[in-house]
Amino acid sequence: MNTLEVPNDLEIAKQTQLKHIIQIAAKLGLEPDDIEMYGKFKAKLPLSIIGKEKAAKGNLILVSAISPTPAGEGKTTVSIGLSEGLNRLGKKSVVVIREPSLGPVFGIKGGATGGGFSQVLPMEDINLHFTGDFSAVEKAHNLLAALIDNNLQNKNNSLNLDPRTISLKRVMDMNDRALRNIVIGLGGTGSGIPRESGFDITAASEVMAILCLSEDIEDLKNRLGNIFVGYTFDRKPIYARHLNAQGAMASLLKDALKPNLVQTIEGNPAIIHLGPFANIAQGTNSVLATNMGLTLGDYTVTEAGFGFDLGAEKFFDIKCQSAGLAPKAVVITATIRALKYHGGAALDSLKIPDPIALLRGLPNLEKHLESAKLFNVTPVIAINLFASDTEEEINILKEFAEEKGVKIAVANVWGAGGEGALDLAEKVIEVVEAKTSNFKPLYTWDMPVITKIETIAKNIYGAANVEFSQKARRDLKTISNLGLEGLPVCMAKTQKSLSDDPALIGRPRNFTVNVREIEIASGAGFIIPITGDMMRMPGLPVHPASENIDIDNEGNIYGLF
Amino acid sequence: MNTLEVPNDLEIAKQTQLKHIIQIAAKLGLEPDDIEMYGKFKAKLPLSIIGKEKAAKGNLILVSAISPTPAGEGKTTVSIGLSEGLNRLGKKSVVVIREPSLGPVFGIKGGATGGGFSQVLPMEDINLHFTGDFSAVEKAHNLLAALIDNNLQNKNNSLNLDPRTISLKRVMDMNDRALRNIVIGLGGTGSGIPRESGFDITAASEVMAILCLSEDIEDLKNRLGNIFVGYTFDRKPIYARHLNAQGAMASLLKDALKPNLVQTIEGNPAIIHLGPFANIAQGTNSVLATNMGLTLGDYTVTEAGFGFDLGAEKFFDIKCQSAGLAPKAVVITATIRALKYHGGAALDSLKIPDPIALLRGLPNLEKHLESAKLFNVTPVIAINLFASDTEEEINILKEFAEEKGVKIAVANVWGAGGEGALDLAEKVIEVVEAKTSNFKPLYTWDMPVITKIETIAKNIYGAANVEFSQKARRDLKTISNLGLEGLPVCMAKTQKSLSDDPALIGRPRNFTVNVREIEIASGAGFIIPITGDMMRMPGLPVHPASENIDIDNEGNIYGLF
Repeated sequence: MNTLEVPNDLEIAKQTQLKHIIQIAAKLGLEPDDIEMYGKFKAKLPLSIIGKEKAAKGNLILVSAISPTPAGEGKTTVSIGLSEGLNRLGKKSVVVIREPSLGPVFGIKGGATGGGFSQVLPMEDINLHFTGDFSAVEKAHNLLAALIDNNLQNKNNSLNLDPRTISLKRVMDMNDRALRNIVIGLGGTGSGIPRESGFDITAASEVMAILCLSEDIEDLKNRLGNIFVGYTFDRKPIYARHLNAQGAMASLLKDALKPNLVQTIEGNPAIIHLGPFANIAQGTNSVLATNMGLTLGDYTVTEAGFGFDLGAEKFFDIKCQSAGLAPKAVVITATIRALKYHGGAALDSLKIPDPIALLRGLPNLEKHLESAKLFNVTPVIAINLFASDTEEEINILKEFAEEKGVKIAVANVWGAGGEGALDLAEKVIEVVEAKTSNFKPLYTWDMPVITKIETIAKNIYGAANVEFSQKARRDLKTISNLGLEGLPVCMAKTQKSLSDDPALIGRPRNFTVNVREIEIASGAGFIIPITGDMMRMPGLPVHPASENIDIDNEGNIYGLF
Repeated sequence: MNTLEVPNDLEIAKQTQLKHIIQIAAKLGLEPDDIEMYGKFKAKLPLSIIGKEKAAKGNLILVSAISPTPAGEGKTTVSIGLSEGLNRLGKKSVVVIREPSLGPVFGIKGGATGGGFSQVLPMEDINLHFTGDFSAVEKAHNLLAALIDNNLQNKNNSLNLDPRTISLKRVMDMNDRALRNIVIGLGGTGSGIPRESGFDITAASEVMAILCLSEDIEDLKNRLGNIFVGYTFDRKPIYARHLNAQGAMASLLKDALKPNLVQTIEGNPAIIHLGPFANIAQGTNSVLATNMGLTLGDYTVTEAGFGFDLGAEKFFDIKCQSAGLAPKAVVITATIRALKYHGGAALDSLKIPDPIALLRGLPNLEKHLESAKLFNVTPVIAINLFASDTEEEINILKEFAEEKGVKIAVANVWGAGGEGALDLAEKVIEVVEAKTSNFKPLYTWDMPVITKIETIAKNIYGAANVEFSQKARRDLKTISNLGLEGLPVCMAKTQKSLSDDPALIGRPRNFTVNVREIEIASGAGFIIPITGDMMRMPGLPVHPASENIDIDNEGNIYGLF
């Protein structure tokens, strides 16, 4: 168990004999004519398949994690492995995960299709473009932006929009820091009105969040029309509907709204749809994809991360409240190396056995377990096994779990796929069948905005208090003026710490959360307090992963991970 | 014939009972397993299908046009109708056309899927996103741009690149004039190096041209690596390969390189692939798509426009020379309303019978016929019939053609599909079977750049001379320094006139073509002299077409045309 020798992800992916997507659909009781194939191994699932009554009764399992190291703790890998394990135990399980962004694929983290023997396939396609959903989001968003500048230029600003108040940026699915802050409209009278603006990464687009939360096309159009654009010179709010943008935007999104079907390495169904980046966005896949999984499977395994403090909190307070979902168990993914990191071990020494650092790092896990209980959902700890983990370290974790009265399983999902997840799957089934979870949200949407932010910061992050900058206080007033006090809160916070300071590892206490500004996503239906130094457009690292990616003349891709 | 009453394009499209794409593929002798389906009505065609020997022998028909009015003269509609007509006459014909850009779809011109009873379907899908090819081009292009700025910022400019010399802009498939001229990299030390830049529309991306001209993935990678980026501070050229960009870029383009199969209204095969905008780009579909059509059909009908001066000239001198293609006939599409416009009739009075204006407008057609003969390819005139055309006007055109010794056919393709194109199809077959065409290019690539530009301007446009701005002269020197003198020339010129001045209708004479600057597309393998006021990023009009586009809750789209 401690000498895992596994080929790299792409090699494993290539060795796998893929089943035709028709066979995968058949496992879910779908006929070839029910699905829209994209090549032989991908398909779009029409929304008509969703049965809301069946979905409401389904067994929804949320996989989240402790605060991650930069490489991630393998939430997606555990989600996939767990679903394989459930299928091995005779449960009809569907894993429902998020789509990768090209930012990390070309940046530092790599793709988002799991790893080792727990992957979704074809990984090259899923990591690059896939079925075009992100591009559709980008186009719909940027059409609205173009219509805004066109109104300023070409309709003599018929909306009387004050260009200095326009909050909507453009988006691009790329780590491109040079586009964060730009001046547009230069070059004379024919080329627009000069003004400050910028680009966010596409995952942070409000259109992405809107797609994730929409229940059907009508709902989608309404939400798109409600995107806040800016103020007129006499301080009246302008929304996307004033530019008549929502019809064309929704038309661009007609296929992106449909969840995608692919397969796991073991030939089980996987649904992948939208929604990455819980640090700067709502960060969960679409309500439609989750309901699709719940309709088609007996168990639906979904993920929300980075750590529980970001992904799971938003999943529970925004998505579950919005869509009436109630998970029956939550898996907290932990790795021994990340816990050692939280105990003070250096990033480059995490492979060295270090029980002391592990013990010191446990409070990070402890906090996330406590948080799960605040939502009244029963947690199960999954140790995502690495080759460097020792028997002694594993036993320390097991004892800790026993003390806390929480089920724990070692999940060798990377090295052994579903076979390695049988123990985890059994424990999840036990929790579901014991019916111990009775989901309740942390806050209700009708609380004042400040209260909602403080409730999250104090209860989930463990902050002592919250400070609002001058800008954030002005934003709070705007929110109140616009009558948007009743929206839930989608925090933008670093994933590296429970606090808003990436340097504070473990379980920090007595810290202050600093809200720098608050963005309004009135279409998606939430507000976004931005804490610390969070950027909604990442940058590429010194050695971008793109430098290693190549393709041969037969179309085989190399260097993706 | 003169009282055409046809429902609008989208209504006709919706009334058509689509065949499954498997049935369309079967018409071309392809098994279901040979193609990659994208839903039930679209497919990607793997490159392995192409047989170069068969392709070299095929009957290639180019459809071009006179200088168009803003609404276009219906080149695509005539191409589709002609292919339907050829199929009705028992010839196995494939129409091979270009993909629509979202710019005109949301702007003023609308989609690019033909019209009336000569359309390719499903028109909503083809006009919006389609199979994601444009998005892939955009991503590959913008990845290179991000890598450039990342090198400046994050690798301490290890390439020693002078930011003021970077010629590569970013691209977006949108009419968005506010992005033409921008300043990027603002916001302090963490967010890039401030510099001037901008966006072109995606159709104008060099990556689009590279895809259109590539013969396989190796060729694609080589061309991508050869994209010129800028100069070092000590004036050494930097190419994309110095950033190790070509592997990741080609990986992003692996599906975009494959031509797309759809169907015509009459259930015949249509291949659609890349390449619009012959005013600011090379403007023809891909070499691979053309060769795919030639492999699979006995007749291949393809298009190049706007007018012959832009689309056909580039088709012949760049694409045919590059790929060894030799069309056996060229159809010059003319409309009576456009000829009246060239004869001085006002845009809003083109429906009024006006034989005098028509007679005055004929020299525009005459010039394009003369140009076709310069390439030694036999022209056929297609009158694209409109409801307002009178018997008298049609007869004037017929007499003109007889005088010139050119075959002419009235093509009621909009009103009657293939049935309306039988006469045109017969005449095209006559030309092909008579073997009168013996294609030769206008210039050879080894001529000096100035000679190539002057040859086009004088012989095809009818200019008296060419003037180069100071900037253009500096660019000529750069081209010479880089050793790129041997590349062909891809003019950027207004489509509205044979000259570079949109106001000069008809057949202008004694005018000067003004070359403002010359862009280098060393990856695609051509240089781009930009004439007059041409912009490579269009803007939206006062009333963007997007305002009329809508979708209902069942996913039916309205307002596309």
